[in-house]
Amino acid sequence: MTQHSHQTAPTQFVEANGIRFAYRRFGKAGEVPLVFNQHFTGTMDHWDPAVTDGFTKSREVILFNNAGVSSTSGEVPTTFEEMGANAVAFIKALGLKQVDVLGFSIGGFVAQEITLHAPELVRRLILLGTGPRGGEGMQGGTPEGNSIFGATNDPPDHLWLSVFFTPSAASQAAGCEFLKRFHLRSTNRDPEVNDKVAPAQRAAIAQWATPRERPYEYLKAIKQPTLVVNGSNDVIIYTMNSYILQQNLPNAELIIYPDSAHGSHHQYPGLFVRDVSAFLSANSVWPA
Amino acid sequence: MTQHSHQTAPTQFVEANGIRFAYRRFGKAGEVPLVFNQHFTGTMDHWDPAVTDGFTKSREVILFNNAGVSSTSGEVPTTFEEMGANAVAFIKALGLKQVDVLGFSIGGFVAQEITLHAPELVRRLILLGTGPRGGEGMQGGTPEGNSIFGATNDPPDHLWLSVFFTPSAASQAAGCEFLKRFHLRSTNRDPEVNDKVAPAQRAAIAQWATPRERPYEYLKAIKQPTLVVNGSNDVIIYTMNSYILQQNLPNAELIIYPDSAHGSHHQYPGLFVRDVSAFLSANSVWPA
Repeated sequence: MTQHSHQTAPTQFVEANGIRFAYRRFGKAGEVPLVFNQHFTGTMDHWDPAVTDGFTKSREVILFNNAGVSSTSGEVPTTFEEMGANAVAFIKALGLKQVDVLGFSIGGFVAQEITLHAPELVRRLILLGTGPRGGEGMQGGTPEGNSIFGATNDPPDHLWLSVFFTPSAASQAAGCEFLKRFHLRSTNRDPEVNDKVAPAQRAAIAQWATPRERPYEYLKAIKQPTLVVNGSNDVIIYTMNSYILQQNLPNAELIIYPDSAHGSHHQYPGLFVRDVSAFLSANSVWPA
Repeated sequence: MTQHSHQTAPTQFVEANGIRFAYRRFGKAGEVPLVFNQHFTGTMDHWDPAVTDGFTKSREVILFNNAGVSSTSGEVPTTFEEMGANAVAFIKALGLKQVDVLGFSIGGFVAQEITLHAPELVRRLILLGTGPRGGEGMQGGTPEGNSIFGATNDPPDHLWLSVFFTPSAASQAAGCEFLKRFHLRSTNRDPEVNDKVAPAQRAAIAQWATPRERPYEYLKAIKQPTLVVNGSNDVIIYTMNSYILQQNLPNAELIIYPDSAHGSHHQYPGLFVRDVSAFLSANSVWPA
């Protein structure tokens, strides 16, 4: 049987909750699979092959579009709680009893909701460039983020150089390498999301961002070993939110990479795969 | 030639700045040696063999007592700047042109001063359970730290269970394992420090802790790749200070381990050696 890669894995479909979920699944079977939850308006093609393929020597990766996104049917819910419930339905529809869950940016909000909704389903958790409910700088978005998402980019993809990378020469150079990788898959790409996706995801973000009493208390319910990762200068979801996650989760490690922003895994894909693999592979997560 | 270990390495002496420095040097020669800077009132015997021996397969480790501490002659200076200058003199007296520097707790203050004083001497830096000048909770010491250091312990070594470990059962169990390792060396141990050491080190801490304008600006001058490591719940030098170090150093990565305190490397020595070795070994420190 052919070993598929990020570039060749066929888009498959599975039905659950009345939604036809598009997904791709590739890598070495046997270990607990790693399920990826994507950022704002992103599709399966917005993942970085240097990251996804980096894991496939030792485990299966599963990419999917949540309800209403790109090749998946249905509508985008306006709460992360519902997105989490849909993701749980998707994972169970694949017949999986236990998975590792990675969430990037708002995908990290979904990953937290998956874990709260179905704790028995989640073995370990990776929260990447993300934050807690009611986190710092979330309400109304950060000034830097609003400026970045409000700007016009030519070509449009250059948006990601500002969202994911710092202004430094080294970070921007890494960004250009990422943009090349991002276009490598030439066949059977996901359609870009329709016009309803961004407003629905924004409504969910606004609800997630709302200030509340003891906002981080809910994190105590996430008992899974968790690796929190971010860049040093994330201006989309402030890096401080990664520190807050680590401090309030009962069982979490934090890694912050230097001179990097919201997309630190796009800047240091080799390092990220090495660190996450070490976290996922250890029998005892944090061995003495 | 016998390969020495933490337990067998003889105490040697070298003279510089009018001080007779006691040191131990062991491990595989060839790579850049790693120089350890010790915590408040600690001697060479306060290092953890699970850490020091953990490095010796791939590099030399150098333990030493700074001026006035235990088997080293002279007096403890009342500033970290002078301690850093003494450490530089010691390293140069060994004929070394370049070293990696690790500093734990107030040893991390010394490590910063070494790097500022002799930047050409330092290849990479590890700042462990430490913080910047004028860091949070430093002035007058933290309430938790003052309570811990003010308590009576029977046996006295149990002090380190409170200083280095969290109250959790897992952390305390790791602490008991550390205390066993701490006593393993049976011959040629360092004498405990004399009564002048603590007051002089306290005076230096008070000066380091003094609030000042733009306290973290000086960190911009430390260009070396730096790995900042701490436990999630350091109450001696608050964990937030490790975040502040990472945010203000130009080229630093941060790792925070779960359910751990000031002595996270004593709790997770295997993990710590793995992470620091990866940081020290890579040709390009943070490879793409």
